[in-house]
Amino acid sequence: MINVTLVGTGNLSHHLAQVFTTSPEIQLIEVMDSRTIHKEALTNKGAMSSEVPDLYILAVSDDAISEVAEHFKTTEALVVHTSGSVGLSALAPINRIGVFYPLQTFSKTREVDFKRIPICIEAPRPEDMKVLHGLALAISDHVHEINSDQRGTLHLAAVFVNNFTNHLYQIGQGLCEKEGLSFDLLKPLIQETAQKIGDLTPVEAQTGPAKRNDVKTIKRHLARLQGAGNKEIYTILTKSITAVHGKKL
Amino acid sequence: MINVTLVGTGNLSHHLAQVFTTSPEIQLIEVMDSRTIHKEALTNKGAMSSEVPDLYILAVSDDAISEVAEHFKTTEALVVHTSGSVGLSALAPINRIGVFYPLQTFSKTREVDFKRIPICIEAPRPEDMKVLHGLALAISDHVHEINSDQRGTLHLAAVFVNNFTNHLYQIGQGLCEKEGLSFDLLKPLIQETAQKIGDLTPVEAQTGPAKRNDVKTIKRHLARLQGAGNKEIYTILTKSITAVHGKKL
Repeated sequence: MINVTLVGTGNLSHHLAQVFTTSPEIQLIEVMDSRTIHKEALTNKGAMSSEVPDLYILAVSDDAISEVAEHFKTTEALVVHTSGSVGLSALAPINRIGVFYPLQTFSKTREVDFKRIPICIEAPRPEDMKVLHGLALAISDHVHEINSDQRGTLHLAAVFVNNFTNHLYQIGQGLCEKEGLSFDLLKPLIQETAQKIGDLTPVEAQTGPAKRNDVKTIKRHLARLQGAGNKEIYTILTKSITAVHGKKL
Repeated sequence: MINVTLVGTGNLSHHLAQVFTTSPEIQLIEVMDSRTIHKEALTNKGAMSSEVPDLYILAVSDDAISEVAEHFKTTEALVVHTSGSVGLSALAPINRIGVFYPLQTFSKTREVDFKRIPICIEAPRPEDMKVLHGLALAISDHVHEINSDQRGTLHLAAVFVNNFTNHLYQIGQGLCEKEGLSFDLLKPLIQETAQKIGDLTPVEAQTGPAKRNDVKTIKRHLARLQGAGNKEIYTILTKSITAVHGKKL
């Protein structure tokens, strides 16, 4: 049995609390609000539970990690953060440290199947890595030991395939709505684009005027686009696709 | 019963032939190779079937439409193309013309559920529109009358959410592989990003350093990126996200 205390009350903490309470191998002791941590809670005098956690999971925003870590300087428990982009060093004042990074986007309103989410773990001490392995395997089938440098790259890649992709969806929606068309028209295409890379590599799955270097269609599209921003995005991405597929001819 | 002849032997023709043969309302008379059309076939002398089609569907590449259309100048049947970006005028020499545009990306190796694919139809004559309605409803639950101008915008939007998104997947894959990480790590995130917009608008679903204007993380990401192309894509998309979400604060 692994005793866990969650620190933070955002989306990730919400979903972790849910999955931890359904796992027979994990005991969720407490969910702490990071803004109201006090010594009593940490020493467990006066806290709701008399149990001492094996680890604290800081599910707080990137910027808050260092500040929240200050409260845990004297604990003997393992303390981990959950960020893709923050190094292990942000927890430096603490004795036993690590990272527990679920590679997924979380919203409060959407159900999450943790079994399929890759959990990236890191800890300098082998005995702490063992604890993180146990915790991660209790909720997911995909556990990976990833160092801080690899995690930084993974987070950067996630920005491309999640944040930037979502922004392209938004541009698509804007184009539709200006023409009086429902964004729903594009949704089956969006789903298929994401599912296709289960069978094909992105290079194999690439289609469209940029890949074909279809200059006539590209010119027509640029003429149709309003606003310098979208024209620039179209031009840069077209150039980048042409660079990849031009070489392959 | 609608009698159809398909012209072209690519991915779309392959999938249309499959779905037409399973529909009790459609009779697929023939699949013609657009490179070997001859008069005998069009007048049905010497053709496999003695039936005359109600319509010819030109499922050929955008560039080939005008040239292939030349062969059909004298037919009394309805002739439609299947392109998102080509106007109706490419079929001008033909008497009865239209467009039958399934808004989806097709690969030979992937099964397609036509019921969920939006079919965009256009025809100047009401009686031809009726034929296209019947054909589209026989295979899909989502049939839309869309004029050439709207279709051009829809095709442009599709380039953003399909072609450009797929290219972002490729950049993500490249980043992973340089670091010795499997692209599989990103696939659950890619799926969730696409599924999220079923519940949330893209603006609501947006997360990440650009939205938060988290300058520290953005700088770290740019330092980590190799190659001017990817740095440029990161910068332009970050700027575009900041522009949208900055206004909303």
